[in-house]
Amino acid sequence: MKTYCFGVDIGGTAIKCGLFCLDGALVETWELPTNTKQAGAHILPELAASLKEKLVEHSIKASAVCGIGVGVPGPVNADGIVLCAVNLGWERKDVSAELFTLTGIPTKTANDANIAALGEAWKGAAKGADDVLLVTLGTSVGSGVIVDGRMLSGSHGAAGELGHGNVSREETEQCTCGGTGCLGQYASATGIVRLARQALEDLKQESLLRGAELSARAVFDAYRANDALAEAVVEQACEKLGWALAFTASVLDPQVIVLGGGVSKAGALLCDCVQKHYQNYAFSLNRNVPIVCAALGNDAGIYGAARLVLIHSDAEMPVEDGHSYLL
Amino acid sequence: MKTYCFGVDIGGTAIKCGLFCLDGALVETWELPTNTKQAGAHILPELAASLKEKLVEHSIKASAVCGIGVGVPGPVNADGIVLCAVNLGWERKDVSAELFTLTGIPTKTANDANIAALGEAWKGAAKGADDVLLVTLGTSVGSGVIVDGRMLSGSHGAAGELGHGNVSREETEQCTCGGTGCLGQYASATGIVRLARQALEDLKQESLLRGAELSARAVFDAYRANDALAEAVVEQACEKLGWALAFTASVLDPQVIVLGGGVSKAGALLCDCVQKHYQNYAFSLNRNVPIVCAALGNDAGIYGAARLVLIHSDAEMPVEDGHSYLL
Repeated sequence: MKTYCFGVDIGGTAIKCGLFCLDGALVETWELPTNTKQAGAHILPELAASLKEKLVEHSIKASAVCGIGVGVPGPVNADGIVLCAVNLGWERKDVSAELFTLTGIPTKTANDANIAALGEAWKGAAKGADDVLLVTLGTSVGSGVIVDGRMLSGSHGAAGELGHGNVSREETEQCTCGGTGCLGQYASATGIVRLARQALEDLKQESLLRGAELSARAVFDAYRANDALAEAVVEQACEKLGWALAFTASVLDPQVIVLGGGVSKAGALLCDCVQKHYQNYAFSLNRNVPIVCAALGNDAGIYGAARLVLIHSDAEMPVEDGHSYLL
Repeated sequence: MKTYCFGVDIGGTAIKCGLFCLDGALVETWELPTNTKQAGAHILPELAASLKEKLVEHSIKASAVCGIGVGVPGPVNADGIVLCAVNLGWERKDVSAELFTLTGIPTKTANDANIAALGEAWKGAAKGADDVLLVTLGTSVGSGVIVDGRMLSGSHGAAGELGHGNVSREETEQCTCGGTGCLGQYASATGIVRLARQALEDLKQESLLRGAELSARAVFDAYRANDALAEAVVEQACEKLGWALAFTASVLDPQVIVLGGGVSKAGALLCDCVQKHYQNYAFSLNRNVPIVCAALGNDAGIYGAARLVLIHSDAEMPVEDGHSYLL
């Protein structure tokens, strides 16, 4: 009888793993370092060894595990093939097949932002929702889209790349993708620092940020302390993000929008400011879509990876109740 | 044995009907006027009578019809409930249940733009594609989204409303929806006429459009005749549309984008101009997505409505080959 599943989130520096019961209860979580040597050739063998070790430790037979779900930082097509994962050194890779060969356990693979969205829709801030837009505000802006309870992959594995959607025709600085005016240039942690640096240069006014070490957190802290320059920066970032979310909502019509990643630690301050701009631009039918902060933090990936396995397995799914995003 | 299905497209002035074989062959198409009296109370009874009459005419038993697919001009939720259809006089209406009661034939209902997208993906310009964005450039801008071969409804039946997505923060004129800067204010037939009127007022240059009866067609005709003012108008509309399609592609990552509606009769002239602006804004992975004109014209709706029935029926589906959008 199948009783467990693994959820794995492979990042550029660490691999986060979770052992789950089929009802979503987390038995244990652990990490191992990501070994990116030799174009990431050791990553899957080391992961497989760690998973097998965990089974021995808990006296669980591999036959009691219904699957391994894996999130990868890169585009993954609808067949679960990783097209590339620059941070891991991978080019095209069939992670599911390789990990199955190494462990004997069926494996499903998807993009890490999509996986995080699935996790938040299952057990986090969007619990109970079938149509979710998760936007991750970290070093860059990622996003995952859940439609009818399932992840949107897109025809090139690039659905939900709104971090590279254009939000400003006037921008002259280039994004890492080669484009200009990408959402990520404004609403990521890096983008907010960039805006703060510009504002410090362009505006002559006093600010707590002058001479300080610039970070998204420092900008939000200064905003909280009524720093006018920091407020202008936050407004600028939130205007761009609110606009992008409003346009995206006109395409997807989600039930709930979840903001995740490091920047989302700013909490209600961020959500309220984004919501204000969002409502200014949103189509009437989407205007009241709640914008909330992610609830699972760094665990969203492992939850979503576990969920990916459970959606595709024959294991009986527990019925979820409660809609946390309506609270 | 099930051998036939009906595809029905209910518009504000006419109801278009098609009788199809299960392989998608169109047996016959006909129209009846849309009777909007008494809040549209006669529409479904008159439609049911017409469908039954057609069966008698062809000596087909109702039991040989696997279903009726219906497209409606208004938001339809994932359960097929019409939330409203202003042009028909309808408020919330369970069209599928009512038509089943009237005919005894199982019925599926969806939004007309989504239905058109499904039709183009089945038998039209996007034949063979699973991920399609159809944008209809008519009196307003509608759109239908196909993901993994299925229509996206959205949580309020409002997915694909990018006609009301904001494409200009500077716009001061109001859209019919109450917002400002909506895509429909630029890229619809009405929007193009509005832009032409503005240009005639603002620019002092000579133009074939001066004194002429303004229409989207007249603008494109003047563009073809190298009229500089008309060219400026077309460029403005296509820039807004190209930009909106690029942002939408960063969300959905479609295989192909189809332009339909009256404006799409401008053909390659329109597609080329939109594609130029699209490529300027699109994320690298989406840059080469083909933008093509719809192929089924006014029949897209009845084809899509038939397809909606067939997707949900147990009737054996013929395997489609060929990818017309790659031609």
